[in-house]
Amino acid sequence: MKKIIFLVLLLNISLNYSQDDKVIKSIFDAGFTKSKAYSWLDYLSNEIGGRLSGSYEAELAVKWSKNELDKLNFDKVWLQPVMVPRWVRGPKEFALIETEPGITFNVPVAALGGSVATPSVGIKSNVIEVQSIEQLKELGKEKIDGKIVFFNRPMDPTFITTFTAYGTAVDQRALGALEASKYGAIGVIVRSMTLRTDDFPHTGGLTYGALPVSKRIPAAAISTKGADKLSSLLKIKPDLKFLLRQQCKQMPDVQSYNVIAEKKGTTYPDEVILIGGHLDSWDIGDGSHDDGAGVVHSMDLINLFNNIDYKPKRTIRVVLFMNEENGLRGSLKYKEIADKEGINHIFAIESDAGGFRPLGFSFTCNDSNFLRILEWKKLFAPYFINVFIKGGSGADISNLRKDYNVLSGLRPNSQRYFDYHHTEIDTFDAINKRELEMGSSAVASLVYLFDKYGLND
Amino acid sequence: MKKIIFLVLLLNISLNYSQDDKVIKSIFDAGFTKSKAYSWLDYLSNEIGGRLSGSYEAELAVKWSKNELDKLNFDKVWLQPVMVPRWVRGPKEFALIETEPGITFNVPVAALGGSVATPSVGIKSNVIEVQSIEQLKELGKEKIDGKIVFFNRPMDPTFITTFTAYGTAVDQRALGALEASKYGAIGVIVRSMTLRTDDFPHTGGLTYGALPVSKRIPAAAISTKGADKLSSLLKIKPDLKFLLRQQCKQMPDVQSYNVIAEKKGTTYPDEVILIGGHLDSWDIGDGSHDDGAGVVHSMDLINLFNNIDYKPKRTIRVVLFMNEENGLRGSLKYKEIADKEGINHIFAIESDAGGFRPLGFSFTCNDSNFLRILEWKKLFAPYFINVFIKGGSGADISNLRKDYNVLSGLRPNSQRYFDYHHTEIDTFDAINKRELEMGSSAVASLVYLFDKYGLND
Repeated sequence: MKKIIFLVLLLNISLNYSQDDKVIKSIFDAGFTKSKAYSWLDYLSNEIGGRLSGSYEAELAVKWSKNELDKLNFDKVWLQPVMVPRWVRGPKEFALIETEPGITFNVPVAALGGSVATPSVGIKSNVIEVQSIEQLKELGKEKIDGKIVFFNRPMDPTFITTFTAYGTAVDQRALGALEASKYGAIGVIVRSMTLRTDDFPHTGGLTYGALPVSKRIPAAAISTKGADKLSSLLKIKPDLKFLLRQQCKQMPDVQSYNVIAEKKGTTYPDEVILIGGHLDSWDIGDGSHDDGAGVVHSMDLINLFNNIDYKPKRTIRVVLFMNEENGLRGSLKYKEIADKEGINHIFAIESDAGGFRPLGFSFTCNDSNFLRILEWKKLFAPYFINVFIKGGSGADISNLRKDYNVLSGLRPNSQRYFDYHHTEIDTFDAINKRELEMGSSAVASLVYLFDKYGLND
Repeated sequence: MKKIIFLVLLLNISLNYSQDDKVIKSIFDAGFTKSKAYSWLDYLSNEIGGRLSGSYEAELAVKWSKNELDKLNFDKVWLQPVMVPRWVRGPKEFALIETEPGITFNVPVAALGGSVATPSVGIKSNVIEVQSIEQLKELGKEKIDGKIVFFNRPMDPTFITTFTAYGTAVDQRALGALEASKYGAIGVIVRSMTLRTDDFPHTGGLTYGALPVSKRIPAAAISTKGADKLSSLLKIKPDLKFLLRQQCKQMPDVQSYNVIAEKKGTTYPDEVILIGGHLDSWDIGDGSHDDGAGVVHSMDLINLFNNIDYKPKRTIRVVLFMNEENGLRGSLKYKEIADKEGINHIFAIESDAGGFRPLGFSFTCNDSNFLRILEWKKLFAPYFINVFIKGGSGADISNLRKDYNVLSGLRPNSQRYFDYHHTEIDTFDAINKRELEMGSSAVASLVYLFDKYGLND
C-alpha cells in the first residue's frame, strides 16, 4: 500500500512537471501567434511617441493604456493619481567648438533631464576635460573656475552586461553638474552613456542635490563622436572655446497617474502578483525599448493567459508606473497606497531592460525561495531563457521588497540596449517582433509558476 | 606526505580552473577591445560585397582574406584550388499579378539559386496555390498542368530556434520545382523563408535532381507580403494570371579556392583544430550575417590569441570554405585533400549562424567527450553563452566527423537571423559590433580549451 502511495506521489509530481512544461509551451506558442505586444507598442511608439512625465504625450499614454486594459477581462482598471515633475526641453539644444574665431565645429548635444537652461545667448568658455569626479578635487577651483567641465570617461566595454558597464560611468551624468559647480564651473558636458561611437547624444537624469536654484549650472550630454572630436581638438588647442545653448525649464508639478489593472485570484485573492513597467519615457525618441517594451510585456500577460484559458489563483495586478525616468513619483505613490491598503505582494516583476531577446531573470529574495526558483530553471531551458541570478528587480518595484517575498527583473540580451537608451533612435524600428514576444511569454511563464505554487514557506 | 601530495593535486586542479577562468576573461576583454572582426567585416561587406561562387567578388574575397591572414603570424597561408559552379542572376527579376487585363500588381521576387531562366518575355499563366509537396499528388496533373505552382506554407513560428522553423518550410524551396515539374507545372513561386511579413524575397538553393535541362522549370522566391497579396487575390480571382521573368543562367564551372591558414602546435602538431566559415555568400545583399560573420570570427582567432600571447599546443587551421551556398564544393575538396594527407582533426568548429549574440554551442561527439565538455559550461556562464547542446555543427565541416573527434557549431541568438537570410538586407548595418565580437571570443575560448586539454581518452 505504501508502495502504491509512493508511486502515486511520484506520478503526481511528474505529472505536475509535465503539465508545467506544457502550459509554458502553450504560453510561448500564444506569444508567437497571439501576442498583442508588437501592435500595442506600434501605437504607443508611433501614434503617441516620447512621453516624459507631465507631457501631453504622457497624458495620452495614460488614457490609451487604460482604454486597452479595459478591453481585457480584468475585474477593475483604474488610474491612481500622482503629482509629477514637469521638465521641458524647449527648442533643440545647440553646441559648437570654436578653435579660433570663425573656425567652429557643430557637435550634437542634448540637455540632461532636470538641467537648468543657459542664458538665451548660451554659455561660451574654455573647456577642462576630466575623467572622473575625483579629478575635480585634484584640479581645484583655480583650474576649473569659469570653465565648462567636460566629463569624458567612457563606459568600460569589458563588462558582459552593459548595465554594469553603464554603472562604471553614469556618476558623471548624475552628479557631474552638482560636483563641478562646487569648483566654479559654469557648465558641464558629459560623454554620452553608450558603448558605440556615433552621433546621438544620450539624455538622462541628473541631480543638483540641495543646491539652490541660483547655483545650478547647465549640463548636457554630448554624442560619443562629438566627445572624441572635442577631446582630440583639446589636445591641439587647449584654449578652444565651447558654446552651449539650451532653453530647458522646470515647470510646476502636474497631475498624472499610474495605470493599474487587477484580476482577483480565484483561490488566494489576498496574495497579489504584480507585473509592471513604466509608462513615461524620455522625450527624444519614442521610448520603444525604455520602457514601451515593459509596458506591453505587462499588458500582454492577461492577453496570453486568456488565450490559453488560464484563470489565476492569485490576484494579478498590472501596474504601469508614471515618472520612473525623472522622479520615481509613481513608484512612491503606489507603495504609499499599497501600504495603506495592506496589499500583500508575494511576487513582483518589472520589465525595464528593453525589448530584446530575454536571457533570464534576476531575483531579489531569500535563499529558500531562490532554491525553489532554481528548480524552475529547467522549464525555461527549452527557450534558452535560463539565466537565473540574484540581482536587482526594477526601479519602480524595488521598494515593495519584504523579507518573505520575491522581486524579479526580466533580463533581456543587453548588448544593443545602450545603442538606443535615452536617444532619438530609441524607436519602434529598433524592436524585433519575435524578441518582444518572447519577453511577454517569459514574464507570463514566470507569473504562471508563482501563481500556481505561491511562495515557499 | 600523502596528504601533502593530495593537497598539491587539489591546489593544482583548482589553479587550473581559475587559470581557465582568467584566460577566458582575457579573451573576452581582448574581444571587446582588440577584435578585428568588425573592421574586417566592414571591408568584406562594404568594399567587396555579395560574393557568390565563381563571381568577381568571390575572387576578390579570396585575395583579400589571404592577404589579411598573411599579416597575422601563421606558419603558412595558402589557397586550395577547387572548381565551383557559376550561376549568374542576370538583370533584376520581374513579376506581377494580373487579375484582369490591365489591372496588375507588382510583387518582389528573386530567382532561386540554380534556377533556369524563363523565356525572355517571361512566363504568364494561372496559379495554383499549395501548402506542401504532398498536396501536388492530391491535385494531380490535370489541375497543375500548364500552371505556375505557388508554394505558400509559412515557417512555423512556434519553434524557439528559427533554424528549426526554417526546416519546417524549406523543402518547398529546395524541391518545389523538381516536384512540380513532374505534374506539368511551367514555373514555381515559393513563399520566402522568413518569419517576418515584409517586401524582401529570400533567395536560396534548389535542386533539379537528375532532371534533364530541357525539363527544368524556373523557380523564384516571392516576398512574404507578395505571397500574402497573391494568396488573398487568388481567393477573389482564382483565374488571375502571374507573370514571371528572370534571366539567370548556369555558366561553366570556374576555378576558385578555399583559403587556409595554419599555425603549427608547439606540443602536439599532429592534432589539428579547425575553425571555419564560408567565404561565399548569395549575390543579393552583402552576406554580412551569412557568412561574413563566420569568416571574421575565424580570422579573429589568431588575432585574439596573439593579443593575450597564447601559443597553441595543437595545430590551428583557419579554413574559409568556398561554395557553401550552392554546391559545397569547397567542403568536399577540403575533406578529399585532408584525407589524402591524413590530417587528424580532433576538433572542428564552424560559425555559420550569423553574427548575433552567441548563446552557446552545439556539439556532435560521443558521450565521453560530451560529458567533459559539459564541465566547461561553467566557464561560459559569466558570459551567458552556456547553452551546450548536442546537435549539428556546420555544412562545411560535418564531413570531418570521426568516432573519436568533436565537431561544433556556434549558436548565436537566432531570432533575427531569418529577417536577413539570403536577402538584399543581409548587410553590414544589420551587424552589432559587440555581438559580433562576442562570437569571436566565444569561439576562441572554446578553441583554447580544446587546445589545452585535447580530446577525452
